[in-house]
Amino acid sequence: MDLIDTIRPLAKKTPSKILMVVLDGVGGLPLTVNGETELAAAKTPNLDALAAESQLGLAELVGAGITPGSGPGHLSLFGYDPLKYVVGRGALSAVGIGVKLNAGDVAVRGNFATLGADRIVVDRRAGRPSDEKNVEVVAKLRAAIPEIDGTPVEIYTESEHRFVVVFRAGELNEAGQGLGANISDVDPQATGVQPMRAVAHDAVSERTAFLVNTFVDRAEVALQGEPEVSGVLFRGYSDVPHFPSFDDIYQLRAACIASYPMYKGLASLVGMDVLNVEGEEDALNGKVAALEQGWAEYDFFYWHVKKTDSTGEDGNFEAKVKKVELFDALLPRLLALKPDVLCIVGDHSTPSKLASHSWHPVPLLIRSDYGRKDLASRYTEEEAQRGSLGLRRGTEIMPLLMANALKLNKYGA
Amino acid sequence: MDLIDTIRPLAKKTPSKILMVVLDGVGGLPLTVNGETELAAAKTPNLDALAAESQLGLAELVGAGITPGSGPGHLSLFGYDPLKYVVGRGALSAVGIGVKLNAGDVAVRGNFATLGADRIVVDRRAGRPSDEKNVEVVAKLRAAIPEIDGTPVEIYTESEHRFVVVFRAGELNEAGQGLGANISDVDPQATGVQPMRAVAHDAVSERTAFLVNTFVDRAEVALQGEPEVSGVLFRGYSDVPHFPSFDDIYQLRAACIASYPMYKGLASLVGMDVLNVEGEEDALNGKVAALEQGWAEYDFFYWHVKKTDSTGEDGNFEAKVKKVELFDALLPRLLALKPDVLCIVGDHSTPSKLASHSWHPVPLLIRSDYGRKDLASRYTEEEAQRGSLGLRRGTEIMPLLMANALKLNKYGA
Repeated sequence: MDLIDTIRPLAKKTPSKILMVVLDGVGGLPLTVNGETELAAAKTPNLDALAAESQLGLAELVGAGITPGSGPGHLSLFGYDPLKYVVGRGALSAVGIGVKLNAGDVAVRGNFATLGADRIVVDRRAGRPSDEKNVEVVAKLRAAIPEIDGTPVEIYTESEHRFVVVFRAGELNEAGQGLGANISDVDPQATGVQPMRAVAHDAVSERTAFLVNTFVDRAEVALQGEPEVSGVLFRGYSDVPHFPSFDDIYQLRAACIASYPMYKGLASLVGMDVLNVEGEEDALNGKVAALEQGWAEYDFFYWHVKKTDSTGEDGNFEAKVKKVELFDALLPRLLALKPDVLCIVGDHSTPSKLASHSWHPVPLLIRSDYGRKDLASRYTEEEAQRGSLGLRRGTEIMPLLMANALKLNKYGA
Repeated sequence: MDLIDTIRPLAKKTPSKILMVVLDGVGGLPLTVNGETELAAAKTPNLDALAAESQLGLAELVGAGITPGSGPGHLSLFGYDPLKYVVGRGALSAVGIGVKLNAGDVAVRGNFATLGADRIVVDRRAGRPSDEKNVEVVAKLRAAIPEIDGTPVEIYTESEHRFVVVFRAGELNEAGQGLGANISDVDPQATGVQPMRAVAHDAVSERTAFLVNTFVDRAEVALQGEPEVSGVLFRGYSDVPHFPSFDDIYQLRAACIASYPMYKGLASLVGMDVLNVEGEEDALNGKVAALEQGWAEYDFFYWHVKKTDSTGEDGNFEAKVKKVELFDALLPRLLALKPDVLCIVGDHSTPSKLASHSWHPVPLLIRSDYGRKDLASRYTEEEAQRGSLGLRRGTEIMPLLMANALKLNKYGA
């Protein structure tokens, strides 16, 4: 049984406020056996003081040994079982570049390809064009294919050979259906053969197959004369996932405070309002200001820090340590708002030793007035092992925050 | 997969005896950050000595953040997934006042109401009559409605405006069905309108709808002349949940030793014999005597202490501490019986700080000859964090007790 289905009938509206701080990719690894992780190496007086009066534990976002992508990691934090609520690659790409999707729309990931004589695929990535070339080709396609048979077509640049197409469904039919996404790939995943024709696997996807095949044909016409970027291949079609909203499940008015489009997109998929953040890049000061400004209006705040992940992805241990210390310096401003429940957690680990996301559980901290004495004394991976929360599934975090905010009724009499 | 289904084919009968002590609501909270809980504040030399040679851990009865009612909390302790085995409000009310239900019966919660001209509901709680008035009205209804069309009708007083009706199914039909409970409410949950007519949502519930509607009509005739208690409203119908019995799952002859009707009712739902307890209220001495007397006859004993919960519900930290100490003083008499497996646990936490049930895990202690060295040295929430059992689902407790009693065969070859 889905935890969401258990929680939903118990949730109640109260004035208490929950602040969930997501330090992206915060979990780390020591560079040498039994050495210190980035969190342990960082000087974090404010986090240490907070940890001493909080409950700690560890969270696995998807499952044992599973390295979460940012999408599943965040969905798990928001309480949605990431094995059940799947954001398809097409939709994630669209959301990741800030495109708002509506029910019934279909988002598709495309690759530019080089086609030779008789439309034979010569290079499935069109020689990896530059991002500038990508933008130029997308502009050409936008001009050539603004719509197909009355269906609006939107084309977005992603990077190199990658782009995204959104087919807008417009009004849904009486059964509430728009465009289906159950069609076969255009990308043959091989060279020396022609692109394939998309075939619909159900009735509601028939129009989508027609749109995709027409797009392929018209793109090849528009790209005639291009030496390398001469065709398009598609795979990874997604209809727009239907998520029960935060308001519907938790009775929470929820706000997202993040800088990067992907996180804002994920938050809006689950019904959060995305607050405006002033400033460049991670804009931590702008994010604190946005939190302060929005504080009165919402019950739940998702507050995202990106650079703990980026520095880990760069394999830069020292830089990641510094980003943790930067957050620590800001922490008093968050505490000054006196959230009833404060949670600090990551959406996955990104150890600089691996220079990538990893499967390691992330340290979880929950501060409320209803905690027991905890044996953990710092917000680090090692201390979190001694915490009272134990090792948790990511989807257990939201129920714990709701409980600590006294926003859940008793289950059964 | 339900743990019960895994356990059932492995269970075997042996002479070993299991004693499960349920200290109702025993889990607590410190009154100040990092302070002591009720258990930690209590002086418990006997429990401490026991803990030093036991396995400890923590148990979550329903799930992360979920505050269990007494029903789900106990079902979980008995090994029944409380999200799957649901005791409806009607059945729980009946069970709670000590009414034995049989398969096919339907139990219904009723409210007395005040009806005005044209049967318009004026007060859905009939001005909250006194308990004495409730008893008087129930007597009147019992005289007026002993049966409907051959179906025996039992009416029980609960408190104020609340009463319970049990429609007895008698012999089941060939499909094993009695009365269904899938009918709509009589209670309009509003004033200024008439009570609604119950409508059956399936064939097996059609007779129940007829019984309920006839009851409503005949009750209004019987109550003519009453100024306030002039009608009845119904919602919360429950057919009798079918629980595989303790004997069936675990091959255990099980006895319940408790004082309060609700706990005795829950135990009898799962097929335990309810032993007689002499004495008033919690009657701990009477419960020890009942245990000593029944010791030879049963394999499993559910031994319930209520006051650890009541004092927590009252928000009385010191009184709860005292109730823990009272139990500690009795513990040697339980140990003198030399149970092969002794378990001490709660059905949920009831911190006096919250003066209500809470979601916090309960400390779990298991003493058998087959434990490892354990880092926990007292039966407290804090020490239990260091225990070898870890953080468990409530439904894992019965399998652990069965295993420690050497009552489970190997799974697979």
